[in-house]
Amino acid sequence: MTVSTANAVWNGTLKEGSGTMKLGSEPAVFPFTFASRFEDGKETNPEELIGAAQAGCFSMFLAALLGGDGYPPASIATSATVHLEEGPTITTIELETTAEVANIDQAAFMEYVQKAKKNCPVSKALTGVELRVSATLVG
Amino acid sequence: MTVSTANAVWNGTLKEGSGTMKLGSEPAVFPFTFASRFEDGKETNPEELIGAAQAGCFSMFLAALLGGDGYPPASIATSATVHLEEGPTITTIELETTAEVANIDQAAFMEYVQKAKKNCPVSKALTGVELRVSATLVG
Repeated sequence: MTVSTANAVWNGTLKEGSGTMKLGSEPAVFPFTFASRFEDGKETNPEELIGAAQAGCFSMFLAALLGGDGYPPASIATSATVHLEEGPTITTIELETTAEVANIDQAAFMEYVQKAKKNCPVSKALTGVELRVSATLVG
Repeated sequence: MTVSTANAVWNGTLKEGSGTMKLGSEPAVFPFTFASRFEDGKETNPEELIGAAQAGCFSMFLAALLGGDGYPPASIATSATVHLEEGPTITTIELETTAEVANIDQAAFMEYVQKAKKNCPVSKALTGVELRVSATLVG
């Protein structure tokens, strides 16, 4: 249906080297290092990209579910916190979402949140990670 | 060990609305739409970010494996092609990597490629997706 591309380069060894990641559609290049992934380095790392993809996919999917059932959302804002633990292993992604939707009750809203958590394409891809979602409805 | 953050916003409905994704460490904001995800739109989508994360993680992990065993790589360059099929479901990610490594034979190199494919943190997270890797060694 859709084919997307991206690429990355790593130059040198793990600790002395450095890398870049790039999206197929964007000119920007994202540098990353051992420090930015495992220590307190200020640059990015693959986990941030995973978090942004999960937050974006969840938000879009929740908008699709709500709008499809007659609850068009004004906005859905989602933050992602990605935990990289020993292994190294990505253990958990926590999403916090705030949705502005008129004329829906809390219980129905939470059912849509659970459906989006379970069924958005990035959730279905990241099955090796525990996904948690907390949601706030703004009427 | 490490906590990374990112966020996203979707405004409006699926087809008329639009969204943005953002990494916690980078000021840039990445717009996306229904067209950029499912049609021929020129902007980004969550699948590109997943591809960049997979390519970056694999390249860094392969550098770590090689360097740890006395084969420090000069460079590892990896492209990712991400297939979003009906569902929508992310079915397959294809990686093509070219590694410049001195003094290693092809068979040993391919064992490291398979280990990185299996064990890098993003591979272990994306267990819902089939990952394919083709690799070229430049001595």
